[in-house]
Amino acid sequence: MDTGQIFLKGQPLPSEWFSGNAFLTPLVARDKNNEFSAGSVSFEPKARTNWHTHPKGQVLIVMEGNGFYQEKDKPAQRIKKGDVIIIPENTEHWHGATAVNKMVHIAITNYKDDVQVTWLEPVTDEEYESVNI
Amino acid sequence: MDTGQIFLKGQPLPSEWFSGNAFLTPLVARDKNNEFSAGSVSFEPKARTNWHTHPKGQVLIVMEGNGFYQEKDKPAQRIKKGDVIIIPENTEHWHGATAVNKMVHIAITNYKDDVQVTWLEPVTDEEYESVNI
Repeated sequence: MDTGQIFLKGQPLPSEWFSGNAFLTPLVARDKNNEFSAGSVSFEPKARTNWHTHPKGQVLIVMEGNGFYQEKDKPAQRIKKGDVIIIPENTEHWHGATAVNKMVHIAITNYKDDVQVTWLEPVTDEEYESVNI
Repeated sequence: MDTGQIFLKGQPLPSEWFSGNAFLTPLVARDKNNEFSAGSVSFEPKARTNWHTHPKGQVLIVMEGNGFYQEKDKPAQRIKKGDVIIIPENTEHWHGATAVNKMVHIAITNYKDDVQVTWLEPVTDEEYESVNI
């Protein structure tokens, strides 16, 4: 039976950089041709990244569910299955599930030299609840 | 209702480069950060690419169905939902659906200078039938 799930849920992501229950299945490693890595990230309801930046941007392709993408000092965008989000370089943002839905996205993350991400502070419960109204 | 399909089927791909009914939905365009394009390609049963090469490789992520990936002078590999195929540079190959199943994959195709692909001859019916046994 086809359950609809494409990738394994994967391994838990660290609470240092994620709030709630988030999981990663790596799909593509950087090599001489692919100057990025790619993976499937599953967020259970309420789970989200910390605020963070990417020195050479990132692409999110939403596979399942409903969530949010928010850049600092801008309104949160609701994102859903089939959506593609092009995240610019050096732009503080977070992404994650809604409070009541899971969300799964593929992330394609470019390298600048050997850096993909700079992690910042958690999205507080107050910040998170303010977009879930 | 969630039908399971993530992306639109998209626009027909040209018979010059594809046999049978194949469709493309573009997802990501090349820009200053993303040195690739990405799209969702749907192959109806029997549809396949021509033989071709990529100067800086390609990544396929199978979203749905069953198909084949074959490099020249090697056995065809059966590919299915959840599989990831890392295609090396300058390696003659084709991919497509099986004779009885559809197949949908995301393709992430790197640029070398301004070139992504060099198209070659069609996969003949004889070549295609020989892997569908």
